[in-house]
This record gives sequence, C-alpha cells and structure tokens, in this order.
Amino acid sequence: MTSKRFFRLVLLVVIALDSFAREPIKSPPPVIQTKIVRARELGIPFEGTPGKLNAITDVPGVEVGYTTLISGEGKLEVGKGPVRTGVTAILPRGHASLNDSVYAGFFSFNGNGEMTGTAWVDEGGFLEGPIIITNTHSVGVARDAVIAWRVKHGAADKTGYWWSLPVVAETWDGWLNDINGFHVKPEDVWHALDIAHGGPLQEGSVGGGTGMICYEFKGGNGTASRKIDIRVSKDASPQTFIVGVFLQANFGRRPQLTIAGEPVGREIPGEVYEQESGSCIAVVATDAPLLPNQLKRLARRVSLGLARTGTILESGSGDLFIAFSTANPNVVNPDQITHDVQTIPNDLMDPLFAGVVQATEEAVVNVLVDNHSMTGRDNHRVEALPHDRLREMMKRFR
Amino acid sequence: MTSKRFFRLVLLVVIALDSFAREPIKSPPPVIQTKIVRARELGIPFEGTPGKLNAITDVPGVEVGYTTLISGEGKLEVGKGPVRTGVTAILPRGHASLNDSVYAGFFSFNGNGEMTGTAWVDEGGFLEGPIIITNTHSVGVARDAVIAWRVKHGAADKTGYWWSLPVVAETWDGWLNDINGFHVKPEDVWHALDIAHGGPLQEGSVGGGTGMICYEFKGGNGTASRKIDIRVSKDASPQTFIVGVFLQANFGRRPQLTIAGEPVGREIPGEVYEQESGSCIAVVATDAPLLPNQLKRLARRVSLGLARTGTILESGSGDLFIAFSTANPNVVNPDQITHDVQTIPNDLMDPLFAGVVQATEEAVVNVLVDNHSMTGRDNHRVEALPHDRLREMMKRFR
Amino acid sequence: MTSKRFFRLVLLVVIALDSFAREPIKSPPPVIQTKIVRARELGIPFEGTPGKLNAITDVPGVEVGYTTLISGEGKLEVGKGPVRTGVTAILPRGHASLNDSVYAGFFSFNGNGEMTGTAWVDEGGFLEGPIIITNTHSVGVARDAVIAWRVKHGAADKTGYWWSLPVVAETWDGWLNDINGFHVKPEDVWHALDIAHGGPLQEGSVGGGTGMICYEFKGGNGTASRKIDIRVSKDASPQTFIVGVFLQANFGRRPQLTIAGEPVGREIPGEVYEQESGSCIAVVATDAPLLPNQLKRLARRVSLGLARTGTILESGSGDLFIAFSTANPNVVNPDQITHDVQTIPNDLMDPLFAGVVQATEEAVVNVLVDNHSMTGRDNHRVEALPHDRLREMMKRFR
Amino acid sequence: MTSKRFFRLVLLVVIALDSFAREPIKSPPPVIQTKIVRARELGIPFEGTPGKLNAITDVPGVEVGYTTLISGEGKLEVGKGPVRTGVTAILPRGHASLNDSVYAGFFSFNGNGEMTGTAWVDEGGFLEGPIIITNTHSVGVARDAVIAWRVKHGAADKTGYWWSLPVVAETWDGWLNDINGFHVKPEDVWHALDIAHGGPLQEGSVGGGTGMICYEFKGGNGTASRKIDIRVSKDASPQTFIVGVFLQANFGRRPQLTIAGEPVGREIPGEVYEQESGSCIAVVATDAPLLPNQLKRLARRVSLGLARTGTILESGSGDLFIAFSTANPNVVNPDQITHDVQTIPNDLMDPLFAGVVQATEEAVVNVLVDNHSMTGRDNHRVEALPHDRLREMMKRFR
Repeated sequence: MTSKRFFRLVLLVVIALDSFAREPIKSPPPVIQTKIVRARELGIPFEGTPGKLNAITDVPGVEVGYTTLISGEGKLEVGKGPVRTGVTAILPRGHASLNDSVYAGFFSFNGNGEMTGTAWVDEGGFLEGPIIITNTHSVGVARDAVIAWRVKHGAADKTGYWWSLPVVAETWDGWLNDINGFHVKPEDVWHALDIAHGGPLQEGSVGGGTGMICYEFKGGNGTASRKIDIRVSKDASPQTFIVGVFLQANFGRRPQLTIAGEPVGREIPGEVYEQESGSCIAVVATDAPLLPNQLKRLARRVSLGLARTGTILESGSGDLFIAFSTANPNVVNPDQITHDVQTIPNDLMDPLFAGVVQATEEAVVNVLVDNHSMTGRDNHRVEALPHDRLREMMKRFR
Repeated sequence: MTSKRFFRLVLLVVIALDSFAREPIKSPPPVIQTKIVRARELGIPFEGTPGKLNAITDVPGVEVGYTTLISGEGKLEVGKGPVRTGVTAILPRGHASLNDSVYAGFFSFNGNGEMTGTAWVDEGGFLEGPIIITNTHSVGVARDAVIAWRVKHGAADKTGYWWSLPVVAETWDGWLNDINGFHVKPEDVWHALDIAHGGPLQEGSVGGGTGMICYEFKGGNGTASRKIDIRVSKDASPQTFIVGVFLQANFGRRPQLTIAGEPVGREIPGEVYEQESGSCIAVVATDAPLLPNQLKRLARRVSLGLARTGTILESGSGDLFIAFSTANPNVVNPDQITHDVQTIPNDLMDPLFAGVVQATEEAVVNVLVDNHSMTGRDNHRVEALPHDRLREMMKRFR
Repeated sequence: MTSKRFFRLVLLVVIALDSFAREPIKSPPPVIQTKIVRARELGIPFEGTPGKLNAITDVPGVEVGYTTLISGEGKLEVGKGPVRTGVTAILPRGHASLNDSVYAGFFSFNGNGEMTGTAWVDEGGFLEGPIIITNTHSVGVARDAVIAWRVKHGAADKTGYWWSLPVVAETWDGWLNDINGFHVKPEDVWHALDIAHGGPLQEGSVGGGTGMICYEFKGGNGTASRKIDIRVSKDASPQTFIVGVFLQANFGRRPQLTIAGEPVGREIPGEVYEQESGSCIAVVATDAPLLPNQLKRLARRVSLGLARTGTILESGSGDLFIAFSTANPNVVNPDQITHDVQTIPNDLMDPLFAGVVQATEEAVVNVLVDNHSMTGRDNHRVEALPHDRLREMMKRFR
Repeated sequence: MTSKRFFRLVLLVVIALDSFAREPIKSPPPVIQTKIVRARELGIPFEGTPGKLNAITDVPGVEVGYTTLISGEGKLEVGKGPVRTGVTAILPRGHASLNDSVYAGFFSFNGNGEMTGTAWVDEGGFLEGPIIITNTHSVGVARDAVIAWRVKHGAADKTGYWWSLPVVAETWDGWLNDINGFHVKPEDVWHALDIAHGGPLQEGSVGGGTGMICYEFKGGNGTASRKIDIRVSKDASPQTFIVGVFLQANFGRRPQLTIAGEPVGREIPGEVYEQESGSCIAVVATDAPLLPNQLKRLARRVSLGLARTGTILESGSGDLFIAFSTANPNVVNPDQITHDVQTIPNDLMDPLFAGVVQATEEAVVNVLVDNHSMTGRDNHRVEALPHDRLREMMKRFR
C-alpha cells in the first residue's frame, strides 16, 4: 500500500471517529466527502517540496479539529436553517497550547474581517492558546467558549485567576447558511477543540469552512506545507524546517481565478451571486525558531501566495493572517528573569518566505479541488470546481 | 434652580426610568449612587472649558446606555455569583447609528486587551454601529448580540444580507465579579442598546464599569468634555466644536496616582491585590469634521491624558482607544460615486488634541470621585477614593 | 501616423530636449535607447484597459523628470567611477506641487529600504512635494537638495519659515555603479525636478533606475496605467478615473520570473551575482478622489502586482510603496477652518485595486522589455531580457 | 572630592579634549557652558533611582559625540549665518556598533518629523549602526556621511559590498539658525562619530541640540537614567538593569510646562514666537535583554514621560522614538543558522516601563535646567529657564 493511500485510510478512520466523538448535532448527517483528491493529483505543477502530509499538521505538535454543522434544506427560516456552517480549531502545541504559548505575528492585508485577540499578539508577540475559525456571526460565541474551555482545561495564572484573549476569526457563509440563526453553540467549539488531532486533515466543506465560497466555486478549507532547507552559504549543509499553511477561503471572483498561471476562471464562466464580502483567514505554522517580528514577516507573505491565484484582495474581504512558531517551548518560565530563546538571521529567511508563498498557493487550489458541490438555504447552490475540466486544461496548456 | 442641579434631577429621573425599562435582571437591585459628586466639585483644578454636561453626551447625537448586573454576596460559586458586572453601549448617532456610519480611528497604546472590529475601523475608516464595553469574558456574547440587534433593528445591505463586525471592548472584573460565570446575556446587551440616551450620564460602578478597579480605588466609568475654539489665526473669530471622552477605567497602581500634579496615591496608601491586568478603554467623540487618519491622531492623545494621572500603562493593561466624529452624516450614499465630506487642516488640530488630553485626565478623576465602595466575590472589597481626603489635599497643596 | 508612433516621436523629441536642458554632466553621453518597445508590443497579454500613454503621466498633472549619470568604464576606482546611476523626480501636480499638497498613503511590504518623509505621510495624510528616487547611498544628498529647491521655488509657510520633510526613496545599484563614490550631486536632483514633464516617459535604464537589476536581467524604471470605470451598480453609467504606476525595479531572482503566468525565468537561466539587496519602489497616482486611508489601501495592492511576476519579496528587499491622489486640489486653504473634500465609498474601490495590480504587473514587464543591456564597474554586465525569446515563448505557450 | 564633583571635572576635561580633537570649524568658538547644573540639584523631586551618571551613557557601551556649530551674529544672510546648529552621534556599542547590530524598536507618536532608516528597524528589528540627530535640513548630508564613515571604518558584507540604511533624525532650529544655509558638512558628522565617548555628557545647547527651543525656553539635549530592579516575585532577589534616555527637545508651548506637577510655565509667562514645528527625538538604551517587539513597547513609553511635563505633542511635532538593547552581542553570526538570544518575559517589563517614563521626564527638565540663553539669527533670543525662579517655586509648592 502506498503511503498516500495509507494516509487516506487513516484520514477516513479519523473522520469516522470524529463522528462518534460526540452526539450527532443535527440531522441529516454531514455530507462526507467520499473521495479525496488533492490539487497536485490532477497534474497541477507547484513549486517546492511538500512535507509528508502536505498539510499544516506536518509541523510537529500542530493539531486541527472540526465541528461541521449541516442540517435542513430548502427555504430559509431564521433560527431553523438550513444550516451549513461549523467550527475549526487549530492548536499550536496540541492540548499543551494552553500553558505553553508560542511566538506569533499578525498581519492584516485587508481588514474587512475579524480576528479577535490580535492586539495582544501584536503587542506581546505571543499566541496564548488555540485559534478558532468560524462564520462571521459566531465569532462571539466561539470566543467566550474558548475562555470557558481554558478555565476547564488550563491552569489559572500565578495569582489564581483566569484571564484570556482568545484568537477567533471568521469568514461569511450567509449565502448558503442561516447565518442569522446563530447555530454555532459553545459545545460545538469545545468539540472541535477536544477532537483536534495531528495527522491527515480533511479539506473543503468541513468545520468553519463548511459554507464558504471561493472564486465562486465551492470554497472552505485547504492546507499545504513545504520542507525548507536553510544554508548559511551555497555549499553548506542545510538545516531543514517545515512551514505549513491552513486557509479558510471565502474570497475571489470567478474571472480572476488563475491556477498555475492559467486563466482557469475565464474558461469556466459562472457567477454565483453578486458577492459582497469574501474573505480569507490564513494560519501559518513553522518549527523554525522565529521571533514575533519575524513571524509577522511570514504572515505578510500569505498575500503573495493568494495573489498567484488571481485575487486582488477586494475591499469587502477580511484578509487576516497569523503565523506562529512551535520552536522555543516553555519560553516563559515564571521563576526566571532572563530566558534563552532561539532565532535565525533575517538574511536566511527567504526560503521560509518562499515556502509560505508556495504553500498558500497550493492550499487555495486544494480548497477548490478537494471539495464537493453544496446546496444550502433557499436552494442556493455552489458547484465545486470540476476536476475533469481542470485536468484537461492543465494538459492543454502545458 | 441652577442648571447643574437641574441636570442632576434629570439624571436621577433617567436612572429611575432605566430601572423600569426592563424586568429586574437579578436581585438584589443595583446599588444606585444616591449622591453624585464630580471631580471639579471637590476643588480640583482642570484645564479647559467643559461642555454643558461635561460628558461625552455633549457631542450632539451621542447616546449611552448601561445594564448593571449586581447580585449575590459572599463566597464565589462559579456560575452563581456574586455578580458585579455589566454592559455599556455607546451609539455615535443614537439609534440612527446602524444605518449612518461615522468616520473613526483606532489606537492601541498597550494591546493587552480586546476591542473587536478594529481591523475594519483601521482599514475602512468607519465605525459602523455602536460600541459595547463589558468584562473580559463577555466580549463574545456582547459581540454576537450586537449582530442580532442589528438584524432586528437595522437594514440589510443592498444585496439583502446582513453582515457586521461589531466593536466590543473589555476590561477585567474578576476580583469582584464571578467572571467565569459568564453572567452577561444577550438581553443585557440589548437592554443597554435600547435604553441608550443623550443627556446626563451616571459614572462610577455602573454598566461595563461595575466591577472595575482604578489605582486600587473603586474604578469604572468616567466622562468629561471640552469646548474647543478653533481659529485660523490669533485674532480670527473662532468656530466652536466639542470633544467628549468616555472611559471604562480599570488600571493603575495606588502609588502612581497623581491628581492635578499632586501625589495623591502616595498620601493614601493601600493595596487591593497584586493586580495583574488592569486596562483602560477610551471612547473619544467629537463633532469636528475629521477624517479617519485625523481621528487616529485624536485617539492617540488619550494616552497623554492618562499619563497625567500617573500611570505608566503597564504591560498587563489593554489600553485601546477609539475616536469618532459625528460630522459628515450620510457620508455613504449608495447612489453616488463621489461624495463631499468635510475636514479641518492638520495645522488646526492642536486645540482638539488639548481637549482630548484634558477631558481624559478629568474623566479619570471622575471615575474615582463619582463612585462608591463595593464588596464583591469572596467579600473582596474595594474602597472608593475618600472625598474628604482629596478635598483636604487639594486645599493643602494649593 | 498612428497615435502610438506619434507619441514615440514626441518622446524622442523630449529626450533630445532633455539632453540640451543642462550642461552634459559626464562624458561619455548617456547610452540612449534608440528603440522603444513596450511589453504589450511583444504579444504579452495583460488585463484591463490602459490609459493613452500607458504611463503614470496619464494621470493629469503628474510630471516625471530624470537625470541619468553614465560615465567611465572598466575597473572601479571609488570616487572616479564607472558611474551608472541617476535621479528620478515625480511631481504629483507638476511644479504646483510645492504649494498644493496631495492626499497620500504609504505602505512598506518589506522594509529593507529607505523612503524618507513617510512618518508624516502616514500621520498627516499628505505628500507635500515631489518624490525623488535614486541609489541607496544618495538618498541624503537628494533629500537636502529637495529642501534647497523648495526654498528657491516654493513659498515659505505662513510664519515666514521653510520647513520640509522630503520623500526620497532608493534602490541599490552598487554592482554596476561606483555607489561609494557618491556621484549624485544636488544639481543632478534639481535638474530632474526642473525638467520634469508630462507626456510620454522613457523607461528602463534612465534616471534613478540607471544601474538597476530585476530578475537578474537589466532592471530600472517601468510604468503603466489603467482606465477605471466605477459604477454604483451593474447597469449604472460609469465614472472614469485613471490609475498609474511607476516602478524603480531592482528585485527578484531569475528562476522566479513569471510573465503572463509563464515561467519565463526558468526558460532563460542565468545568474548575475549572489544578489543581496534587491528592492522595489512604487509610486501609484490616481485622479480618483481618495482619502489618505484609502490611498494606503491602494499602495498595499502593489505587492499583489509584483507577486504576479513571481517574486516573494525577499528579506533583503526594500519594498516601499506610496500612493497619491491628484483630486482635491487646494485642500488646505489657510483662511478656512472646515474644508470640503471628495471621496468615494470603500465599496466602490475594487476597480481601483484591480487597476493597481494590473498596472504594477505590466510596469514590471515594461522594466524588463523597454530596456537594454549594460556594462558597468569592473566590467560587470547585465543582459536585457531578449525580446525574441520572450516573443517566442508567448507564442508557444498561448 | 565627591564623585559628583569628580565627574564634573572629567566632563570639563572631555569638553576641552573635544575642542582639540579637530580643527575649529567656525569662529567664534562655541559658547561653552561654564556651570553645569542638573535638574535634581535645584530640589526638583523625581521618582526612581538614577544610574551613576544619570545619563544614557550609564548603559555600558553607549557612546555619544557632539559637533557644535556656532558662528556669526546679527542679521541672517542665507549661507553665511548666523549658525547655531550641530550634530549628535549615539553609538549603541561604541565603535563596535558598525559590525555588531543591536535589537531595536521604533515608535512614532506624532510623525511630523524625520527619522530615516526606521522602515528597516521596524521590519528587521535591528539598529545596524549609529544614530545621528541634527537639524531638519541637514538630515540628508548626515545620512550619506554615515554611509561614507561606514565604508571607511566598517566591514563590507559577506558579498563584499557596502549597503547601509542609516538612522538620522532631526528637529527644526530655523528660528535661531541659518537653517537654509545648510551649514552641517560631512566632516561635522564624522567628527561627532569619531569623538563619541562614554562617561559624563554635556547637555543643553550642544551638538544637534544647539539651536533648539523647548517650552519656549532654551532647549536642546537632555539625558537621565534609571536603575531597574526586576524580580520574579515580591520577595525574590532582583536582577538589576539600567535604562537611559537621551532627548533632542524642541517642543512645547510655555503655558503647558509642568515640572514635578507644578504649573511652572504659567508662572513664568513669555512667548518666543508663534511656534510652528516643535519636535522631540528620543533615544532609549538599556542593557536588559529585550526583543524588537519589546523595545517598541519601551519606545512608546517615552510619550508618557513627555506628557508629565505638560505637552500635548502637537500636530507640528515630530515625536519619534527609538529604543535599543545592548544585550545579545554578536546576535548574528554568519556561520550559524540558529542563534541563542536572551529575552525577559513581558510580565516583568513594568519596572523598565517606569524607568523610561521617569528618565524621560527628568531628561526634559535637564534640557531646560542644564542650559544657557542664546542669541541667534536676526538677534532672535531665547532665554534659559531661570534657576532661581524654579528653585523658589519648588520650595513654595512643596
């Protein structure tokens, strides 16, 4: 059995276990993808060398959990559905994240969106817990739920109190989802946190990405990673790091879509609706030892990867990016004044920048390819990017 | 009857009406301040000329509403109380705020706190609804409640959808309040929004400021305003504007407290607890026609006013400031491409800067003076700044 | 005669006049391009509709002037040469710029470079004079020379004093140029300012761009523009604006170069030298009435246009972008407190964003195409991108 | 002999040596202060414990050098004088600064001024050479002179090239000085760099501060320092650091001046001129091991120290602050990928914040006290703050 097939098997088992991990939230059961096809399997050329899973979870310690909420069909009744939404949880050091912060940096390319907790990320340089991504109208419930979860699972600070500024981000799913029905509940957030795991990840219309639209195809989640060799000079032996990108992608207009340099969107015309407020949340993880200001530099490069797929990051878009490093564990020891931490020189960061750009580009295409069509509220329908058309175009152009 | 007394009467009526405006939330009833004493009545000298009410509501259109949650006594039982918290709502153009945005600017002096919605304020230059201030662990519920309130009361956008990035800020009240009990509910937020009004304002331990601590005295809300004369040259006749400041003050250590240049804090020693995470949220309002980048300049000056009271804006403090201008109504007309808006030259902004600094300084002292002592969870007690001591010191030093 | 040919003729006349406009600075005379070929003439497809000149000077009022310093050959003698450098001056409102500021916004994508004067652009929202671009080691002389020029040509402020914070930017040309010889003199800066003109512009190795390298081909200056139709709704009649981009391009590694989606750089391998410090300065001009915070949004989009040509904006790169609007003339009248200015809604900015991205992409390719090979210090040689190879690749891929 | 007297003696010797260190630049010789009186000697109470010299040079390694240009009297003839200006050089690690960068952070409170090189400080987190402070119109010459000095004294980078983005800041001295005469020459900058030294520093009207005005008294340079004890908990033994502040102070209106909480400015009325463009450049140095984002936090606190002296940091002011740490020597070793560096937790930074605020406040008063009256161009005269009046006020109020 090839390792690729093995991982798919593991993934299907993980998905199955997920669905047992808690009571079914809504009927009918989530439309589970039965076939996983990632972008590079369609013959799309990408630069760089991916990690084993080609996912953010290639960065050791990073865990991801989803809660997917799909129920109801037909006409919208606010508060009843149809529901096409969910929650994504990303834990930098798995469940140790609560008491072992990571250095982090934040960048807003176009701030028409929400990522809570970033004033402190920017000021203090730390991400002090998980990252949650959900729909625009559920950021609040998710934020307070993270505090409740921290109170339950994490330690109080040294004065015996809890105090927390959770990082929760969003994109808007109101064209498919009863977004004004506020269907995400605290337990949905806790579920995503509780079941977060390393290893292979589902992509597409799951978790926070469930109801998203990208380039007017079915959007949602995508991930990719790059192995990065850093050398002090051309002939020196390298030190290898990994950089992973995770996206909740809800942006872009059809005619802009460019894949591997090809005007794919113009070849498959179609408009979903006069889109108002696409957005893209990106999480960049690395095990390279970077300081907060260096991680901000990594976060900024996400925009270049998005640009390669054709977007101009529109005015209505909330393009908010956060990057963290899992190096420097236990950086804050309360019994010590000075602490040793590791960094790498700015001069040697270019391979990491390239990794972010490349992984972001591939993650966008994974969003589109590793996905399925969906019908939501008021029978609004969004088609997935057709694999055969894409495969054919890739052949034709190359 | 003097106008000052008249306003106090009006204020007491407003308070009384407030308590009828909805069902009592918790028993026992809020400890209502029976005596209103503002800082300048104790003989404290302040620079500048205040507006009629010496409050943010001197800026025409600005409305403020509180929900105060006080119940229980004695030992903490998480989820049961004691409760010492609340919600403050500030509406730039009253209830018209939902469909008539104001230009705004944001500044974080020390980002150890939360103000949601600021990525868009910073990017787009608009505040598109109310500002809510509450406790740290209730930012989420307040945020989503604002969206629900907008869906109910505001218009959809031109594509028929709702979409909102509410501005909700916080300071931490966990020393007096059962903060992990999450006592703020959506209806508490709606209540504060619904009853928001112009005219005189309560200060001290009401609304979001209920459980706050400032310079280790009882903290909470304070406000002040300044009339601003702007002239193009020394002898020209002035145009008059108003600038108002509102604070939720939860910062500072006792020995730092300086009032009118005097080391008041060192004269009244006392430590409440090893304070971890004080914060100060400030809202600056003006009717001067300023553009977003100019309002950011106004917001930044809040830090100078705070500095005059002795604080160094500590590492654990979330010092987040937002400024808006009620000039330029209906600045976005969907049927027009180019819009006329008003501005004033940068060169003429100094009087506005002075107004912000002066009103901020006075608002801090109002927080401390226009307040009362409080006992909260686990019988934790915070004393109000004693008026007699302060009055005496002011006499002695001057 | 076609209009294109007519403009070329005008351009050649302008170039000729330029060389008479002052004493020859250095012998031998500048290597003037005899053939002007712009990127789209080679069959490269670009999105959008360019303005008449496809240059930043399509924005009415914008003037550009160059001083090109080329002299000496062979081995480097610091202070003697060879000299391959120059100065570019961009005047937002031509020579009226000194006393009629424009709204402006600044963005640093990667701050490994210099653009003086940006603290005030960022704070005050105005660009109060020309923009100068030169080599890294001549920013200082250029900056002070602008002040001297302002003292000579501009009015004092209302108190009778001069005071100025010139905007001067740089990229590094030390591989071809005797950069440590400091060959740019104040009179070179004044010359560029004095001869600045509207109409057709030279591109490539002239002015500040003389000694630059881009994707390891000969780099330097490039420009492009887009006509922008803005509509309040799909069927409404449009209002037309123009957005122009000017680049001093000195960035990128060969294998990254992508033109119209094609991996051109990998098809024409070659390494000039282990490049340390590429950079890209961009100036965006528009006649659309935008406020400072909106112009910052425009400036930020330059990075997306650069990304389309393959760069990852490396750590050693100074990628500093400034955008200004020539609308709102005489925005500051010293005899008035409130001023009317025009703006357009954020919601309608997307066509402008697209224009910036598209014009930036084309300007980069113009840098490479409208250029010639150059030999500089120590016989270092940089080849221009070969037109035939590019033309052939464009045919093959499409 | 007391240590204070000893240091004064050393200082006078240093001053004397300075004047021999190079040819006299201009006649008549600089008006050297014959009596040094620092603020605390007049009985002004300040918080905190100063370092040995109460100067930025208490931070080991920090060196400061001045070139003072004073010549001519009477009517202004542009280019001839009178000259009242100069150059200040601050070297973080003395002459080793060129090849051993320090971590640094930058903050602009009000960006109406210039500090070159800050885009890279902000991006890369390093200050890679000296800081120069001079007058507004000489920033350029100083900047290029630093590059020339680096080429002469520093090593090329590993590719054999020089490349530099010097940090040069300014305040405006055109009321006393023939600022449009551009009297600062490269050799003046080199002189300040060459003679930079540790130990006691002159304050007042020397170096870049020569022609400055502060609160409409004679302004210029001031410095102060604080010893900082940091403890992990109340009873733990402390680790001691030093924080030093250096100001070039050219800001403030007379009525605002507040010293130790007293309205000194209102007691000594007087207006110099309708001031347009005051400014304050601040340099913060510490030996505490702080990362770039932490140093930015330090830089921001300068504004609070300034606020304590009464200023509102006006619109015309360039209030630009830079902080660096001399810890972490040799942080970039070109033969290594990962590097160990030291930091201290954010939670323990408050004593450093307090030190910056206190030292800034004292440095402003040192500017005013350790100074002398000056007559400049067109017989413009600025009086020094009279010591006797201040001494008397301090007695009266306390």
